[in-house]
Amino acid sequence: MPLVVVGSVAIDSVVTPTERRDDMLGGSATHFSYAASFFTGVRLVGVVGDDWPAAHTKLLQARGIDTSGLQVVEGGKTFTWTGRYEPNMNDRETLDVQLNVFGQFDPELPEAYRRAKYVFLANGVPAVQMKVLEQVPGRRLAVADTMDLWIHNEREDLDRLLTQLDGLVLNDSEAKLLAETENLALAGHRVREMGPRFVVIKKGEHGAMFFGEHETYVLPAYPTEQVVDPTGAGDTFAGGMMGYLAEQDNFEPRTLKTAMAYGILTASFNVEGFGLERMQQITRDDIERRFEDYRKMLSF
Amino acid sequence: MPLVVVGSVAIDSVVTPTERRDDMLGGSATHFSYAASFFTGVRLVGVVGDDWPAAHTKLLQARGIDTSGLQVVEGGKTFTWTGRYEPNMNDRETLDVQLNVFGQFDPELPEAYRRAKYVFLANGVPAVQMKVLEQVPGRRLAVADTMDLWIHNEREDLDRLLTQLDGLVLNDSEAKLLAETENLALAGHRVREMGPRFVVIKKGEHGAMFFGEHETYVLPAYPTEQVVDPTGAGDTFAGGMMGYLAEQDNFEPRTLKTAMAYGILTASFNVEGFGLERMQQITRDDIERRFEDYRKMLSF
Repeated sequence: MPLVVVGSVAIDSVVTPTERRDDMLGGSATHFSYAASFFTGVRLVGVVGDDWPAAHTKLLQARGIDTSGLQVVEGGKTFTWTGRYEPNMNDRETLDVQLNVFGQFDPELPEAYRRAKYVFLANGVPAVQMKVLEQVPGRRLAVADTMDLWIHNEREDLDRLLTQLDGLVLNDSEAKLLAETENLALAGHRVREMGPRFVVIKKGEHGAMFFGEHETYVLPAYPTEQVVDPTGAGDTFAGGMMGYLAEQDNFEPRTLKTAMAYGILTASFNVEGFGLERMQQITRDDIERRFEDYRKMLSF
Repeated sequence: MPLVVVGSVAIDSVVTPTERRDDMLGGSATHFSYAASFFTGVRLVGVVGDDWPAAHTKLLQARGIDTSGLQVVEGGKTFTWTGRYEPNMNDRETLDVQLNVFGQFDPELPEAYRRAKYVFLANGVPAVQMKVLEQVPGRRLAVADTMDLWIHNEREDLDRLLTQLDGLVLNDSEAKLLAETENLALAGHRVREMGPRFVVIKKGEHGAMFFGEHETYVLPAYPTEQVVDPTGAGDTFAGGMMGYLAEQDNFEPRTLKTAMAYGILTASFNVEGFGLERMQQITRDDIERRFEDYRKMLSF
């Protein structure tokens, strides 16, 4: 089943303790789309300026991603982000951020996208995420990401959004903030009680947790010695997870758990190169092989 | 197979954000012994002063733990530790520590202990850990714990010890320090190359990692909403793991992975109460039930 994703499309520059890369294809919707495209058809909604290189769009189209929902604002500039990672490759500092055209992003879904059954709202202003939801009234599964900024500054809109979602994906520090507890197992259930049928907490190098009404699952990250650039790992995780769900067209608890594993494994490739470099080298078979290793690792 | 453990026996006081408990039975060898006793016969080696309450010894003996290796120093005082946990229940501050008789701990294994096949050296001075090893020449599996203090100050002795060990158990920050890398997957293999046949990295609320020559396993912690007192969780983990190995009398990679799971589950009970409170309420059946839940959680 096709999967619609709405979110940022950006130009990223990344500084790590050993290297620097400028002007890479980045953004939450980009990383999400690329990951999900290994599993299902993806329809991308985003906005860029007229500085946006055509090669970036071609890279997405080469994976079968429908970019007809990517608005190009004439005379506008694309969202840019520059960040630097600490030696632990988890903590990072934003050195520069220019929202540019993304600051006025008002997503209008192409007619063909509005019949989508699977929708992912990448991190963004909750009121804008809500506007997207209203454009896909026949959806079967809507999942969103959020962040600390909205938890602090847009809480009312976020609370309203939560009641309309099937799933919420957020990272561990955000879950603690939203649920006002330091215990993640408690945080997951509390956030679920705010509306969504399920909550997924991303723990970076420590994996992810799933909270349903009757289920709590914790899965570890896939151990990799080669962490080159973690940018977009969370969106890649969500892309792998949602892509698998849309492919299966089923979201029973057991399928959701398997989907979370696929998200973890897809993200494990993303961190092994800058931007989308490593993702461009892999196939679905590589993901499946790592999935089998992972499944074996977790069985005893 | 009986399992010998050598390490600290202490009187602990713990302050959490909601409560304070004084004068509890604590110490690394104590938590280890109690956990291992659910799986195998345990022979404890430690030292206390004549202030040591007989009730504490009885509590250990009630679980079948052989305390004939527990020296009582007349006129001496028992090791005491007082710590306070941060609201996240992971970070803690040592408020007071009095080594007392443990400062001169010179373990002499009773004759009956010296034929042991399974030996655990709880955290302690590496030179003292080495002296214990020399007393069990017929051992089949010797595993040790260590800490940042010895990595900083007793590195030569520690390096020598590492070449004599079958396994090393240490926490994530210590592994990073010892291996001089922030990547845990890399750290585990590097530490293994320093001597031990396998390395286990404890990640607290995020579970544990196992590194063998050809194996890397990562297992998550069991999700619990009820974290009352994490003191001794790492020793309980090691106790569950080593207890299971001694019970199986086998340390193939697959058994080691299952043992790590038993360690994680045994520790998940320990944190649910102060000191040994929760551990006193459970039976092997409770561990087995949680083991089955955990196994199901990790299968897909």
